[in-house]
Amino acid sequence: MVSSDVVPVAAVDGIRLSVSAVGLKKAKPGSDGTTLRPPSDVALIEARAGSSAAATFTQNRFEAAPVTLAREHLAKRDANKATYLLINAGNANAGTGRPGMTAAQHCCALVSGQAAVEPTNVMPFSTGVIGELLPTEGIEAAIPSLLAELSSENWAAAAEAIMTTDTVAKHGAVSCEVFGQTYTLSGISKGAGMIMPNMATMLCYMATDLSVDEALLQSLLNEAVDGSFNRITVDGDTSTNDACVLLATGLETQARLVDREQPETLVFLTALKRLSLSLATQIIEDAEGASKLVTVQVNGGRSPQDCLTVAYTIAHSPLVKTALYASDPNWGRILAAVGRAPIDQLDVEAVSIYFDSVLIAERGAVSPDYVEQEATAVMEKGAYTLRVDLGAGTASESIWTCDLSHDYVSINADYRS
Amino acid sequence: MVSSDVVPVAAVDGIRLSVSAVGLKKAKPGSDGTTLRPPSDVALIEARAGSSAAATFTQNRFEAAPVTLAREHLAKRDANKATYLLINAGNANAGTGRPGMTAAQHCCALVSGQAAVEPTNVMPFSTGVIGELLPTEGIEAAIPSLLAELSSENWAAAAEAIMTTDTVAKHGAVSCEVFGQTYTLSGISKGAGMIMPNMATMLCYMATDLSVDEALLQSLLNEAVDGSFNRITVDGDTSTNDACVLLATGLETQARLVDREQPETLVFLTALKRLSLSLATQIIEDAEGASKLVTVQVNGGRSPQDCLTVAYTIAHSPLVKTALYASDPNWGRILAAVGRAPIDQLDVEAVSIYFDSVLIAERGAVSPDYVEQEATAVMEKGAYTLRVDLGAGTASESIWTCDLSHDYVSINADYRS
Repeated sequence: MVSSDVVPVAAVDGIRLSVSAVGLKKAKPGSDGTTLRPPSDVALIEARAGSSAAATFTQNRFEAAPVTLAREHLAKRDANKATYLLINAGNANAGTGRPGMTAAQHCCALVSGQAAVEPTNVMPFSTGVIGELLPTEGIEAAIPSLLAELSSENWAAAAEAIMTTDTVAKHGAVSCEVFGQTYTLSGISKGAGMIMPNMATMLCYMATDLSVDEALLQSLLNEAVDGSFNRITVDGDTSTNDACVLLATGLETQARLVDREQPETLVFLTALKRLSLSLATQIIEDAEGASKLVTVQVNGGRSPQDCLTVAYTIAHSPLVKTALYASDPNWGRILAAVGRAPIDQLDVEAVSIYFDSVLIAERGAVSPDYVEQEATAVMEKGAYTLRVDLGAGTASESIWTCDLSHDYVSINADYRS
Repeated sequence: MVSSDVVPVAAVDGIRLSVSAVGLKKAKPGSDGTTLRPPSDVALIEARAGSSAAATFTQNRFEAAPVTLAREHLAKRDANKATYLLINAGNANAGTGRPGMTAAQHCCALVSGQAAVEPTNVMPFSTGVIGELLPTEGIEAAIPSLLAELSSENWAAAAEAIMTTDTVAKHGAVSCEVFGQTYTLSGISKGAGMIMPNMATMLCYMATDLSVDEALLQSLLNEAVDGSFNRITVDGDTSTNDACVLLATGLETQARLVDREQPETLVFLTALKRLSLSLATQIIEDAEGASKLVTVQVNGGRSPQDCLTVAYTIAHSPLVKTALYASDPNWGRILAAVGRAPIDQLDVEAVSIYFDSVLIAERGAVSPDYVEQEATAVMEKGAYTLRVDLGAGTASESIWTCDLSHDYVSINADYRS
């Protein structure tokens, strides 16, 4: 469950942010017909010298130039200096070949020159239209003010700046009591549709004022991402630009998380998982054309992988997703998806299907106690759980998805950059 | 390519068919507002004593009762007696548990009793609504007339009788010159949507008057199905009832195909592949809400499996399919699908993408010579080829798919049995 104790994003000691409008996103007319001031489309995030940093990146082989460069810079950065994340929305700088890489390098050099750090202490991120070279003039002109205006209070403004097709800014914070103190973990994310490659990409930036060893930080981030951002699916597609960054600004001289043996590490990991899942499900709730947040939970599997395979087969079935849209408890479609999931063994007589607590099908057929109205009542809710029990073991996994609506087709068929 | 020499279905020596209307499909009012006579919904196909038979069935673990029984009867049938295929549309007899199996057995017993063969010489097939027990009274009442009215001229009528959400009857015939004679290969198929589990199922029945050893017939059918029915995809779903049957009515005493060493076997296999592909692509052309028949051809793979993996990743991407619907040459979506296809190696610099002969992208980026209007012109055609070259080897595979339209969502979201 998404935790109820995630609060709006809050300042994190050691993190400063700024935003600018450089014309990468088009200005839209306001509701009164007048043109609003151009929307912000660049954000700069600074982590103070001595911070640890960790990141996960898209697994898509066609990764955008900034992803390649951010990965490289993360490995080479000097943790004794400040670290900068330079993010633009409106242009993904993907599918742009060698000139795209040059543009990304140029942006990093602009920040590093004025902030007195090596270019490798600057990680670039881009999201937006694919296949158009990133124009760097506007970003170049904005760097001085971006650096001058860095403030710990700009988290929500940064969440706005990184939006593309998102309809709402996504952010949150949780607190974490360890070492006799209260630490903060804040984050922002964007994405609407697991991706829509023209205006694509899941991006997430989280930071804490805890002191965390960098290798441990990466390990904890991997685990949190695996249970959240890697468990959400709108349409099974994966962007060329996805990235998730976690910064920890506590210094090495402070009380520090260094391994998983410390009880404090588990407390922080729990908070990290809670925030990650909130930022991930905010993306599903804002998914293109989606009207429902559906948890697909598969229990009783022989392995976690079997559970995930069955869950994704269900969540990616257009027939299931259109039935979710229609609030139609079409258990035949779910049963057929389970039956074709590529797992080694399946005892169809052991499978049961529930919507929340309503038993739909068991022993490979509709339940004798099934009352369709009860299932429909669950499906008409904005959020519910589709639960499958495989009756084969003790493994259990959950993923989060949404329905497939007319609006999804409209948004993705009619959209042109 | 779909062959141009597939002609309308023709009589096959040794095959007789009949149809009946038993009320499993609802009668629809005619265009003048009056009620038409009830549509035929049961077909009986008889292959004369001495015929060979082969079949492939759904890989879905939740197979319907008739599938289980047909598979069992095929293995046990007495080839020295006539073989009967009893097909009903309107009710899939799937997800019906033990009573469903009893109903399927009862139908076989009805035919066998009146036709003086063992029940194992009767193969049952059902397609239609899932989860409702097959009512057998109407079928029982129709058996005498079905047997009495068997005729070699009823192929097209049978193609009509097995339709569910299909908007057109699907059939075809090819001729085959071997052993100094002209033989016929005829077939009918149904399906609209790779499946729609409520009114589901791909069914195909083909027959030839050639004499073919039964083990060879099964091997040839497997190969033909693998290159046709197993290469079409609307939504990646697989029905609980899919089946494809091939009958060969030539007797053992005639000139006979017995192994793959005979040159005549290759001639027959070529004809079989041609008819199978025609019957398969007729299904895609009639797919739910589809407006386009798109061949996804992947060349230059390290293995046929790599090519198929990439092709299916493209064909199942809702983002690609909505772009096909919009005639939008959104190469970023195709490139992203290629990039996330689960194959072992991919050199993104070697990949190129074409719509028919129009080069869209190469070396991981849009082609410098690309003119969008040329790609749009191809995509506005009713049928074209989306070609990907992986630049990694010599393997090549093609699959056939369609676009994802508003109508697909409407048909699948709004449909209730």
